Amino acid sequence: MDLVSQTKCFGGSIEVYSHASIACQSPMKFSIYLPPQAKARSLPVLYFLSGLTCTEENFMAKAGAQQFAAKYGLILVAPDTSPRNTGIAGEDEDWDFGTGAGFYVDATAEPWSQHYRMYSYIVDELPELIGENFPVLRDRQSITGHSMGGHGALICALQNPDRYRSVSAFAPICAPIQCQWGQKAFSNYLGANQNDWRSYDASELVRVGQFPGSILIDQGSEDKFLANQLLPTVFQQACADVGQSLNLRIQPGYDHSYYFIASFIEDHIRFHAEML
Amino acid sequence: MDLVSQTKCFGGSIEVYSHASIACQSPMKFSIYLPPQAKARSLPVLYFLSGLTCTEENFMAKAGAQQFAAKYGLILVAPDTSPRNTGIAGEDEDWDFGTGAGFYVDATAEPWSQHYRMYSYIVDELPELIGENFPVLRDRQSITGHSMGGHGALICALQNPDRYRSVSAFAPICAPIQCQWGQKAFSNYLGANQNDWRSYDASELVRVGQFPGSILIDQGSEDKFLANQLLPTVFQQACADVGQSLNLRIQPGYDHSYYFIASFIEDHIRFHAEML
Repeated sequence: MDLVSQTKCFGGSIEVYSHASIACQSPMKFSIYLPPQAKARSLPVLYFLSGLTCTEENFMAKAGAQQFAAKYGLILVAPDTSPRNTGIAGEDEDWDFGTGAGFYVDATAEPWSQHYRMYSYIVDELPELIGENFPVLRDRQSITGHSMGGHGALICALQNPDRYRSVSAFAPICAPIQCQWGQKAFSNYLGANQNDWRSYDASELVRVGQFPGSILIDQGSEDKFLANQLLPTVFQQACADVGQSLNLRIQPGYDHSYYFIASFIEDHIRFHAEML
Repeated sequence: MDLVSQTKCFGGSIEVYSHASIACQSPMKFSIYLPPQAKARSLPVLYFLSGLTCTEENFMAKAGAQQFAAKYGLILVAPDTSPRNTGIAGEDEDWDFGTGAGFYVDATAEPWSQHYRMYSYIVDELPELIGENFPVLRDRQSITGHSMGGHGALICALQNPDRYRSVSAFAPICAPIQCQWGQKAFSNYLGANQNDWRSYDASELVRVGQFPGSILIDQGSEDKFLANQLLPTVFQQACADVGQSLNLRIQPGYDHSYYFIASFIEDHIRFHAEML
């Protein structure tokens, strides 16, 4: 694990690391914020999964989360959104597929299946790496994310309710099977059989098994992707059908940007801190 | 004045405008944050001048200032750091001169003197424009900035103590005549006669006339530009010599980044709010 950069922020330390990922068979980067309390004791961890085109930097630079991680005593981890420079033909051609758009699935279709295994990376490899190298309480972790990363947070938590104490999301892609972003990604990463897509769709997963705790989702009413790509009401209906507790807050006037995330990140960090 | 974008943040509105600047004979952009209180009444204004390579976006996206502007009831204005695309040969060649590096001076030397008049833009034109178009209390404005913009804030306030209620800076270029960044900019914008540079150097200006109130400066101890470009101790000595009240805080472990600004922006906004 190589230290790429280290920057002091709100009394703690933002650190970026690069490491050889086993899951992705590729170098991967992540950023971590260690609040001041981490010098004295082990702390819970909140993972933040970013959206399309993002790297490990966006959340740290734009969400204003560090002050609240310091206030509530959480470590933040923000991984990159895909492997990069794998040499797969076409991986850099689209902004919504390939590089920067791993969709938090384990690809099974060629040519993506060797490297694009973000699900295993996020759920298994990264927590193990964080646990070995930083002062974290391994059994106290939660997950959140934005847009594609909100989808990622939901599916990781719904598939592994024993591993995450709580889950929330900002403007998540709630029903990827039913939107163009998801259909494009899943058909390429997972192949044409839509039955294979279900385990990566929150609105399908919640019908199979619920999360033992309320799910918090914030969604801006003026988000230009709301009606066609994000589809929170599909997830809301699925939750209602099976009795999954959900707090879906439609925030009037807010869009899809990090300014929206920044406006509500304290609510999410407090929500997770109470569960952690 | 054309609205470029409008984004809700912490209950208020971040708006970016483009307008034809008279001072710069060029289109100029600025961003403004109107906190929720601005819907009901006029508010004081805090100007933030950004550093080398920045645009009107960096401060809004990375400093996390909006929550505190909403908390303390201030409007924030962040102008661009230079005119752009003026057609002057070489303006895009260097990162520390020309585009993104207006240095908040009125250029007098060719070919810069027609467009690079950021001092007049910041001190005269922009406040007039803001006063005409937004709910601001025209006689209640203050100024701050970062690096080159910290230099800008100091010289604007020291030259116009009647126009600004308070001034602060993050890691300002304190003695541009004595550092390479300043010498390069001033020799090109102002010509070879160093006597003409003094009215744009805070450490010289403070010897001519003081600001009626304490100046707040935060400076990271691990800032890589501290020893060669920023020179806060030169300004500190000048202030001591003439009795200018100065609160220069060396913040241990912090660097030159927006993570440093974010860590202390509440202190600065509170400092200005108390004066406004």
